[in-house]
Amino acid sequence: MKKVLITTVPFAKTNKLPIELLEAAEIEYCINPLNKKLTADELQEMIFDYDAIIAGTEEININVLKNAKRLKIISRVGIGLDSVDLNEAKFRDVTVTYTPDAPAPAVAELTIGNIISLLRGTHLSNLKMHERKWERIFGRRIPEVTIGVIGAGRIGGRVLRRLAAFGSPRILVNDLSPNLNVAPQLKIEWVDKETIFKEADVITLHVPLSRTTKNMISAPQINLMKRDALLINVARGGIINENDLADALISNRIGGAAIDCFEFEPYSGPLTDIDTCLLTSHMGSMSLDCRSRMEIEATEEVIRFFKGTELKNLVPESEYLMQNDG
Amino acid sequence: MKKVLITTVPFAKTNKLPIELLEAAEIEYCINPLNKKLTADELQEMIFDYDAIIAGTEEININVLKNAKRLKIISRVGIGLDSVDLNEAKFRDVTVTYTPDAPAPAVAELTIGNIISLLRGTHLSNLKMHERKWERIFGRRIPEVTIGVIGAGRIGGRVLRRLAAFGSPRILVNDLSPNLNVAPQLKIEWVDKETIFKEADVITLHVPLSRTTKNMISAPQINLMKRDALLINVARGGIINENDLADALISNRIGGAAIDCFEFEPYSGPLTDIDTCLLTSHMGSMSLDCRSRMEIEATEEVIRFFKGTELKNLVPESEYLMQNDG
Repeated sequence: MKKVLITTVPFAKTNKLPIELLEAAEIEYCINPLNKKLTADELQEMIFDYDAIIAGTEEININVLKNAKRLKIISRVGIGLDSVDLNEAKFRDVTVTYTPDAPAPAVAELTIGNIISLLRGTHLSNLKMHERKWERIFGRRIPEVTIGVIGAGRIGGRVLRRLAAFGSPRILVNDLSPNLNVAPQLKIEWVDKETIFKEADVITLHVPLSRTTKNMISAPQINLMKRDALLINVARGGIINENDLADALISNRIGGAAIDCFEFEPYSGPLTDIDTCLLTSHMGSMSLDCRSRMEIEATEEVIRFFKGTELKNLVPESEYLMQNDG
Repeated sequence: MKKVLITTVPFAKTNKLPIELLEAAEIEYCINPLNKKLTADELQEMIFDYDAIIAGTEEININVLKNAKRLKIISRVGIGLDSVDLNEAKFRDVTVTYTPDAPAPAVAELTIGNIISLLRGTHLSNLKMHERKWERIFGRRIPEVTIGVIGAGRIGGRVLRRLAAFGSPRILVNDLSPNLNVAPQLKIEWVDKETIFKEADVITLHVPLSRTTKNMISAPQINLMKRDALLINVARGGIINENDLADALISNRIGGAAIDCFEFEPYSGPLTDIDTCLLTSHMGSMSLDCRSRMEIEATEEVIRFFKGTELKNLVPESEYLMQNDG
């Protein structure tokens, strides 16, 4: 009987279908007994007799893979692959799949909500009102500002299309390969990142974490930004240098930020003391429908693998190359 | 020289044009010296030698009007007229104007932001994260829920058109006179209010405060709602009974609420102790551009009045009738 370790939690909490699928396929499963994001050390200890991982964002590095004597497939619940040493997995003949489309609608919708919260000071007013302080905050509307989008793929593209409903903001977009049809309703200016840092009122990141994007926004980039710039990261922790961001917010170098993902999670660093920083607990993809779809897709991929039927979401070669090139 | 009392604060804070217009027209002005929403008693004492009011939402009742011996025009900065005794003003030959279009885009945008915050638990996660508590909250996306809109006029219509960018939620709308072209992209079901209370996951109010809408949502209506219903009021305080809402939230009778306006402002009542209630300080129209437009339009109306040129935003007869009929 094949055995799968489900590391991502919560799992099958509202929709039991992934569990039912595993049981119907007679695959033995274990859901992460620590009920939190595992460290590489913890995973290394648990992994030795499992044939598959249905994985969250925990690190699956060379030490984990060395200890995973039976492992044949890593099925990532989600889109990001920064946590998996892809080339080491390939070397050890471990197949890696992911669910690149499922999270996109939920992440894009949260991004729009966070843009409006930051522009209007909703999060600040809510904190003050709960301290019984009444202070009317002036905000700005989407069509009145310049919005900079870094990364216009599955998620960034959806953000752009939803923005179009709010009138005609000035939109600056940066992407490795500009897709000129991403949001036909909008007049998009394709620019370099520096132009976005200098000219955007709202900057939102929709890129993967890689050697190139790690610390992509640190003090030098923040120092190019407008005094009232607002910065959003619902992509991956580590793309923004958290300590530099905290310094910038404390010194009012920029106006505010909305941060959903962190270099180390659970996060409890200096941003938690800063009211202008809207914080959420890595919830970008956490809508019931998207999360269910991600869990089901990742589970089906494991079942297909053991049945020997064709896989639907093999990680493409470009992702392996990206980790090589850095 | 004509004298105008500007009661609404802040006024001309970021855009000085209203003040410049008054000075160019040689109209003397005084900006509310108490720098807060005036009570009727306070206004009654101040008003006696002013020819005009550029008014906020403070009560302008019979006692105020009796004392306003020289008053010829009330120019409301905003859309709501519940604060003004229109028929008493007419009886005393005081003209009333307002700015019905200017606030709509800002209110609609805040509404969309609040819908997403409530659906995703952003406000809750932000409170927890600032207490260094990491708890991933499952949410729902707009296209997965049923959204009930009560009032589909200037603001409700804009909310509907912006919702269309987020996919195809089930949309229930109630309005005295259904406007079938309000959002052609959406399949709208025109229903009675009871259907909205029973079937909607998110209920958002875009009606004026009147004798009919006062306490429109109290315990009996809340008791019809789904257990996880989310309630939004960026319209006017008093439409939702605040104490009934607080009871319902404390007992988890409904899932959450976003409240921007209150029966008495500044508000410091029981909702301030409830984390599931997203609170803002009457900021619906508080975007820089909309607020400026409102202030400029209200000021221009006063200037036109004293110059004897035609007014652009006289309050229509229907508003007087609504106050008569209750």
